[in-house]
Amino acid sequence: MRMILKPNFISSIVPRGHSTVRNFATNSARLSGLVQTKVHDNGYTVLSMNKKPVNSLSLEFLKELDKELELVQTNSKGLVLTSTMPTIFCAGLEITEMYQPDLARLREFWYTVQGVFLKIYGCKIPTVACMNGHSLAGGCFLALACDYRVMVGPKYLVGLNETQLGIAAPFWIQEPMTQAIGFRKSLLALMLGTAFNAQEALNIGLIDEMVANTEEAHKQSDVIMTKFLKIPSLAYHQTKMQMRNDLYNRLNDNREKDVDNFVDFIMLPSVQAQLGAYLEALKNKAKKK
Amino acid sequence: MRMILKPNFISSIVPRGHSTVRNFATNSARLSGLVQTKVHDNGYTVLSMNKKPVNSLSLEFLKELDKELELVQTNSKGLVLTSTMPTIFCAGLEITEMYQPDLARLREFWYTVQGVFLKIYGCKIPTVACMNGHSLAGGCFLALACDYRVMVGPKYLVGLNETQLGIAAPFWIQEPMTQAIGFRKSLLALMLGTAFNAQEALNIGLIDEMVANTEEAHKQSDVIMTKFLKIPSLAYHQTKMQMRNDLYNRLNDNREKDVDNFVDFIMLPSVQAQLGAYLEALKNKAKKK
Amino acid sequence: MRMILKPNFISSIVPRGHSTVRNFATNSARLSGLVQTKVHDNGYTVLSMNKKPVNSLSLEFLKELDKELELVQTNSKGLVLTSTMPTIFCAGLEITEMYQPDLARLREFWYTVQGVFLKIYGCKIPTVACMNGHSLAGGCFLALACDYRVMVGPKYLVGLNETQLGIAAPFWIQEPMTQAIGFRKSLLALMLGTAFNAQEALNIGLIDEMVANTEEAHKQSDVIMTKFLKIPSLAYHQTKMQMRNDLYNRLNDNREKDVDNFVDFIMLPSVQAQLGAYLEALKNKAKKK
Repeated sequence: MRMILKPNFISSIVPRGHSTVRNFATNSARLSGLVQTKVHDNGYTVLSMNKKPVNSLSLEFLKELDKELELVQTNSKGLVLTSTMPTIFCAGLEITEMYQPDLARLREFWYTVQGVFLKIYGCKIPTVACMNGHSLAGGCFLALACDYRVMVGPKYLVGLNETQLGIAAPFWIQEPMTQAIGFRKSLLALMLGTAFNAQEALNIGLIDEMVANTEEAHKQSDVIMTKFLKIPSLAYHQTKMQMRNDLYNRLNDNREKDVDNFVDFIMLPSVQAQLGAYLEALKNKAKKK
Repeated sequence: MRMILKPNFISSIVPRGHSTVRNFATNSARLSGLVQTKVHDNGYTVLSMNKKPVNSLSLEFLKELDKELELVQTNSKGLVLTSTMPTIFCAGLEITEMYQPDLARLREFWYTVQGVFLKIYGCKIPTVACMNGHSLAGGCFLALACDYRVMVGPKYLVGLNETQLGIAAPFWIQEPMTQAIGFRKSLLALMLGTAFNAQEALNIGLIDEMVANTEEAHKQSDVIMTKFLKIPSLAYHQTKMQMRNDLYNRLNDNREKDVDNFVDFIMLPSVQAQLGAYLEALKNKAKKK
Repeated sequence: MRMILKPNFISSIVPRGHSTVRNFATNSARLSGLVQTKVHDNGYTVLSMNKKPVNSLSLEFLKELDKELELVQTNSKGLVLTSTMPTIFCAGLEITEMYQPDLARLREFWYTVQGVFLKIYGCKIPTVACMNGHSLAGGCFLALACDYRVMVGPKYLVGLNETQLGIAAPFWIQEPMTQAIGFRKSLLALMLGTAFNAQEALNIGLIDEMVANTEEAHKQSDVIMTKFLKIPSLAYHQTKMQMRNDLYNRLNDNREKDVDNFVDFIMLPSVQAQLGAYLEALKNKAKKK
C-alpha cells in the first residue's frame, strides 16, 4: 500500500526556486491537507504543518503528522519540518483536547503525542526544524526532537511554557530541553515556563541558528541538511541514537504508564480549572478583536 | 503541636520596609535562636541562619535548621534562606564534628546533614538562597539545594572546597554542582577544591545573580520569589521534582549506606591527620590576631 | 619484576631545563621505543608517544602504552601524556587494524583500546594531556580521558571525527566528549564528525587551555599538575572517580559485549567499503607527494 505513495517523492522540474511542492492531500483521499510535503531538489523532504490558524496539535492533526512522518522516514533521505503559517511554527497542544475531555480520547491523544515525538526523536534520517515563527510548548518540543534548529528571529518566541498553564511537562519533554541547554537553564526555564525570543534562545543553545526571515530559514536548513547527508547514514544514525536511546527507550517502554500519569494530572480539578480559565481568557481576547 | 507555632507566620504591620521579623527563639523554649524566621509581606518566609561567628553547621544547628525548614515548608508558600552574619552566608560543616569524633554522634551528624539537604532540595515550596557573604563547602551546598541563588559580590567566595581539607564530597553534594555548572567545570572545581569569587561564580552559572550588597540581595530574592509564586504551585513542584527526583531518591533510599561511606572515609588516619592539621592552623591564625 | 624499572623514575641532575629524559627502550629489551618516559623535576612522569609518523594506535603500540601507563600509575605521582612528533599529538586508531582484519586480532585490538582508555580515565594519579599537535579520533579520546587538556593552537585540530570515516564511536568514547562539552555540542559534533581547531575547541570547552607552542604547553601542563599535586591524593582520586565511576564501570563490566558490537559494526560490508576507500585515498595522496 505504501508503494503507491512513492511517486510523491519524485521531484519534478520546477522553473525557479529549489523545490517542487506535492500536497499529499491533493492526490490521496486519506490526507486532509493538514500536512504538506515537498521533495527538495537535494533529495530530502520538506514537511509543512498546515493547520490554521496556529498548527495547534489536535488528535487528528497529530495522527496525520504521524502517518506522514512514517512515510517520509521510509521513503526519503532527510526531513525538514516547517509550517505554512507566516508567523507560527507551532503553538503547541490543542488545549481543548485536555479540557473536560472524553477520557478514551484523552488517552489516545497523549499516546499519539508520544508517538510523534518518538518518530522524530528516533528518526532514521536526519531531521531539521525550520522554525519560521513562534514555537511554544508542543511546538518547542517538536523542534527539540529534531537534529538541528534554525529559527527566524529575533522576535518570535520559543519555549516550554507549560507551567504557565498549570501543566507539568513530562520527563520526555523536559529531557530534550535539558539535552539542548543543560540542567540548570532547563530547570529554571521549565519551572518558570519561560518563552525566550529567538535571540535569547540562540544565546542559551535552545536553537542552533537564528536567521532574518523564512527564506533564509529554508536556505540555512538546506545548508545543514546537505552537511548531514554527506555523513555515511549508518554511522550518522548509530551515533545519534547512542546518545538518544536512553530517553527513547524509557518512553517507548513505558507509554501506558506515562499516559496514566498524564491523565491523572490533567484530570485534577485544579488543573482543569486552570485550563478552563485559560480558554476563557483566549475567548475574551478573541472577542475584543 | 505544630499549631501553636502558626501565629509566628502571621505578618504584623511594619511602618517601613517590606518585612516583619519574628524570632522563634523569643517565643518558644524549644528554639535556641540559631535560626530566625520572618514572614515577608509577600507571604513567604525568610529563614536566617544565626550561629555566630560563621554559621558553621554543627549537629545542634543542623537539627534546628531541619525543624524550622519543616515548619516553613508546611506553613509558608516560599522560603528565602539567608544569614544574619554581615559577611558570611555559611562557612560549611563544623570541622570539630569530624575530628576525633564520637562515632554515634558522627553518624547522627551526617544523617542530619543529609536530612537538611533533602528537605531543601525537595522542598514543596519555592526556595531562594540569598547569599549575603561567603558560601563555602556546606554553605555552597545549602545554596545549591535551593531553586535560585542571589549572591552579594564580587568579593565573597563560593565553592565546594572540600578536597582542600582532604575530604571528598559525596555524590549528592557533587551532583547539584554538576547540575548547576555542568560536568566538566564541576569535575575540575571539585578536584581542585576551587573557591570562586561571586563574579566567577556568576560567569559559570554557580550563582544566578550577583548584587552589590545585602539589601539588593533581599530585593532580588523577592523579585524571583514573586515570579515563582505566580506559577501554579502543583505544576511548579512537579516540574522541579521531575528533574530532581533521581538524585533525591538515590540519597533518600541509601542514607545508611552513605553514612557508612562517610564515616569510613572520615575515620581514615590520613583524613583525620589532615583535619587535625587544619584545626591547628585555624587555632594559630586566631592566636596571631 | 617491576622493581628493576624503578630506577627509571629517579630523576638525575640536568644542567638546564626542567626535566630529565629516560627512554625505557634504551635500558629494557621489552620496550620498543614506541613510548618514552621522563621524570619531571617536580616528581611526575611525562609519557611521550613516539610512533612515527603520526602516533597511529596499532595493537602493538597500544599494548606498549598500556604497560607503560601501568608502570607510571604504580610508580609515579602524576602523568603528563604528550607526543614526540612536532605537529601531531595522536592521529587516532590505525585504520589498517580495522580493514579486512583477522577477527581474533581485531577483538584483541579493541579490547586493548578499551584497556588504555580505562587506565587513563580511572588513573590513580592526576593526568594532563599536553597536546602538542593534531588530536583526532583516538587522539582526541586519549586527551578526553585525562584530567586536563592543554593544547597548542590555534591551527591544530581536535575532535571525534569518526563518522567522517563511516564509523560510530562507541558510548564510552562519546560520553567523555559529552562530559567535556555538554550533550548538545557533543551530539552535533559527533554526528558531523567535526574537527575543531584549538581556538574553537577552547571556546566550547573541549580543551582547557590553548598555548602558542610546545614549550608553553609543557610549562602550562606543569602549572596545572603542580596544582593537582597539592591536593591530598585520596580526596583527589575519590572525587574524580565518584564522577567517573558510572561510565568506568559500564565499560569495565561489559568489555566483551562492547567488543562484539564493535566487531559486528566494523565488519559490515558498507563500513569495510568506506574504510577501503579511505585507505585508497590516503595512498593516492601519498603518491602525489
